[in-house]
Amino acid sequence: MDRRQFGTQIIGTLAATGLAADTARAEEVEEVAEVKDAKPDPDVTRKLARYIVNAKYEDLPAPVRKEGQRTLLNWAGCAIGGSRHETLDIAISALSPFAGAGQATVLGRQEKLDVLHASLMNGISSHIFDYDDTHLRTIIHPAGPVASAILALAEYHPVSGREFLNALVLGVETECRIGNSVWPNHYDVGWHITGTAGVFGAAAAVGKLLSLNEQQMLWALGLAAVQPVGLREMFGSMTKSFHPGRAAQNGFTAALLASKNYTCSDHGIEAQRGWANVVSTKHNYAEITEKLGQSYEIALNTYKPFACGIVIHPTLDACIQLRTQYQLKAGQIEKIQLRVHPLVLELTGKKTPQTGLEGKFSVYYAAAVAIIEGAAGERQFSDKLVKNPRVTALRDRVTTIIDPSIAAEQVRVVITKIDGTKFEKYIDNAIGSVKNPMSDAALETKFADLADGVLPKSQARKVMDLCWNVEKLPSAGEIAKAASA
Amino acid sequence: MDRRQFGTQIIGTLAATGLAADTARAEEVEEVAEVKDAKPDPDVTRKLARYIVNAKYEDLPAPVRKEGQRTLLNWAGCAIGGSRHETLDIAISALSPFAGAGQATVLGRQEKLDVLHASLMNGISSHIFDYDDTHLRTIIHPAGPVASAILALAEYHPVSGREFLNALVLGVETECRIGNSVWPNHYDVGWHITGTAGVFGAAAAVGKLLSLNEQQMLWALGLAAVQPVGLREMFGSMTKSFHPGRAAQNGFTAALLASKNYTCSDHGIEAQRGWANVVSTKHNYAEITEKLGQSYEIALNTYKPFACGIVIHPTLDACIQLRTQYQLKAGQIEKIQLRVHPLVLELTGKKTPQTGLEGKFSVYYAAAVAIIEGAAGERQFSDKLVKNPRVTALRDRVTTIIDPSIAAEQVRVVITKIDGTKFEKYIDNAIGSVKNPMSDAALETKFADLADGVLPKSQARKVMDLCWNVEKLPSAGEIAKAASA
Repeated sequence: MDRRQFGTQIIGTLAATGLAADTARAEEVEEVAEVKDAKPDPDVTRKLARYIVNAKYEDLPAPVRKEGQRTLLNWAGCAIGGSRHETLDIAISALSPFAGAGQATVLGRQEKLDVLHASLMNGISSHIFDYDDTHLRTIIHPAGPVASAILALAEYHPVSGREFLNALVLGVETECRIGNSVWPNHYDVGWHITGTAGVFGAAAAVGKLLSLNEQQMLWALGLAAVQPVGLREMFGSMTKSFHPGRAAQNGFTAALLASKNYTCSDHGIEAQRGWANVVSTKHNYAEITEKLGQSYEIALNTYKPFACGIVIHPTLDACIQLRTQYQLKAGQIEKIQLRVHPLVLELTGKKTPQTGLEGKFSVYYAAAVAIIEGAAGERQFSDKLVKNPRVTALRDRVTTIIDPSIAAEQVRVVITKIDGTKFEKYIDNAIGSVKNPMSDAALETKFADLADGVLPKSQARKVMDLCWNVEKLPSAGEIAKAASA
Repeated sequence: MDRRQFGTQIIGTLAATGLAADTARAEEVEEVAEVKDAKPDPDVTRKLARYIVNAKYEDLPAPVRKEGQRTLLNWAGCAIGGSRHETLDIAISALSPFAGAGQATVLGRQEKLDVLHASLMNGISSHIFDYDDTHLRTIIHPAGPVASAILALAEYHPVSGREFLNALVLGVETECRIGNSVWPNHYDVGWHITGTAGVFGAAAAVGKLLSLNEQQMLWALGLAAVQPVGLREMFGSMTKSFHPGRAAQNGFTAALLASKNYTCSDHGIEAQRGWANVVSTKHNYAEITEKLGQSYEIALNTYKPFACGIVIHPTLDACIQLRTQYQLKAGQIEKIQLRVHPLVLELTGKKTPQTGLEGKFSVYYAAAVAIIEGAAGERQFSDKLVKNPRVTALRDRVTTIIDPSIAAEQVRVVITKIDGTKFEKYIDNAIGSVKNPMSDAALETKFADLADGVLPKSQARKVMDLCWNVEKLPSAGEIAKAASA
């Protein structure tokens, strides 16, 4: 069964880039919104709350459950991988003097914190490398807010692996549907949608595991609505990864308050002065209320095979394939020619990057390092490798041709060897896109790379096994305990 | 020296009602914004941060210091008064299992919580009765977010009373200036401005007491920018008072992270995808950057003498004055005639309220209870009193005449006794407005009423004395300790 059948919409040829998708989505949403705004739905929040409260693990189609496992494993790898970064060191040092009892694990570290602070920290670390999952339709990174909150909860308030997986799917469903309803206007104006929609996802998932009733779930969603997090202005700073972390913590807080009957409006999302009207000029509530339980947004989740912006991914995919197929070595290569969409140079056109971070914005460096290393994970974007003479020598032999007939998720790469031989590769849907998903094995390799240097290999293996087997666990909190340093 | 001289703007005849002021302000802001938007200021956040970092207690004019004491005392009374309400019971019960060490007092209660949770709880309780202070130009309730944060901090990180008062003034300055810059569009669209602007106030004040440098203060303001709280849709529910509490906690968190060099953009307020552009369609950055250190928004702070919506205040003022002047008794009165602005009946026209909360929306009930009790504090809006036959009998003898020539902050009351005698009172600026502020003695009476039943009289007296004498305290945290139950 094709996992894409479970998505609410196939994005088709625009799938590989959230950027190129903006224009098409904007037109679509505008049309729909004109119709929908004429007949406002007074029960958007209630319909969503009722669905979340009633949805059962047994209702989940097998491909959705599988995608839940993949989402969980990819998120855990990213959180472990980011756990030793300065960003997390600072956050823990600043806030741990005020944290409560050590109820939950900070993945990849020795610290235990109260569940709210653990949610924050795991959400931060999972986004530090910008290497986490992506719901391409909205550019939401779904797992950060949701998994960070419920895994912390699961250590304090034991839940079975099946309940956990169901809550993960429902949390992702909630945040992505709410994101769909305000996309793209909400993102365009400057909100970081992962943080703003993510609060709802965390509230829904934690609320589900706390067995909230319908009225309490309405309150949880309303309390989430008053706590959006994140501005795009912060991209490029530590605060970007604060957004999914704080979204996890805020949604968790919302569900806890609601569980004790802290009241708020029953119309947090759709009211005239509710969330959607306040944070977006357009909205389409049908995206939230229709086909609940029939389509699943998690089926549209994607995982980055490469630790850089998505417009470079086709080039990396092509170069790595050519290298493997023809056993190419840097010393044999005369030149690498890339025929790319104009956006590629606009966003990643740095010719001589000087740092690892700058390397992520250089399609020239990326092509070279992919040939030499056969990979483009976080370690391939180190400050050291960016200055390595072998890499820079090859980088300087990379040329680009802008070709508007090439889509943003496509590329045509021609490699010419010194002996005159030419090798060519055309990529239609890069690896990691909805149409060409990463394999389970590739997700494991990514996880192992991220965990390398943080956890022993055997421990990383155990965490992966627990993620794949989450549905068999009597207590999902085992996953967090296994990821403790 | 007149305290109004320190305000940036005299609101004049519109002062008594935030509602009537909206239209005039909207026109004014629109004009200014057109000019200012043409020349965007790239250093709004920096200018504000630099001012906050450099401003000294010694620079504060005496009337500003005095208004700081009054703001503090009024806030403490409201927080103590709300401390036994179900809203706070629920919040503490939901979140205290995750709180850290007992570093700070929840005013009026026995619980001690970590400073972040104590900020949240005190911010909630101070707003439960909607009886706290009001910056009439923006309808911001300034003290909740700021005082709740810094008083909690002061118990953990000792600061002198002078430093504390300076931080309070600067926090209020920060939130009200930022509020001024986006008013009224930001409020009109549905944001609860106390929670959204309040985060900046808390971050600035805590950051000042943590001695942040200019770069760190920029980060604190940026981290505040990504965490707005509050939608007007929640008015009438417990979540309304969550807003100032969470604003205090979020701003506190922002300052803590910044103090350890957690980075973000230097242009959190003014960037294209920064706070002001994202949360408001209009903004006037001169409101933030001009006359810093020359004018003080806290000088425009007002305190409610009556525990209900501000449009009823002129009627209450008139009735209490007539009662006192002529020793009026309910039994002697044939009728009470109110000549009022149209808004008064639109907002508070309930003829037969059945609960204390409904009583707050009945100018008829309010006039009657003011004559009988000589006051209109929180206890005058009890469920019991609303149904008291003596009060309802008088309530049913109250009539209203709508008169557009009467402004919203005015009223003309004529009381006719059974013997035919008539007494008349015209109110131009109701007690509690900027032009007719509550006296220190009236603030003390309000405080004592709120603290009654929560703290012994002698203890309430001590807390008031500490607030008046804050500048002499070696450690401002004494105020919180004295307010512990």
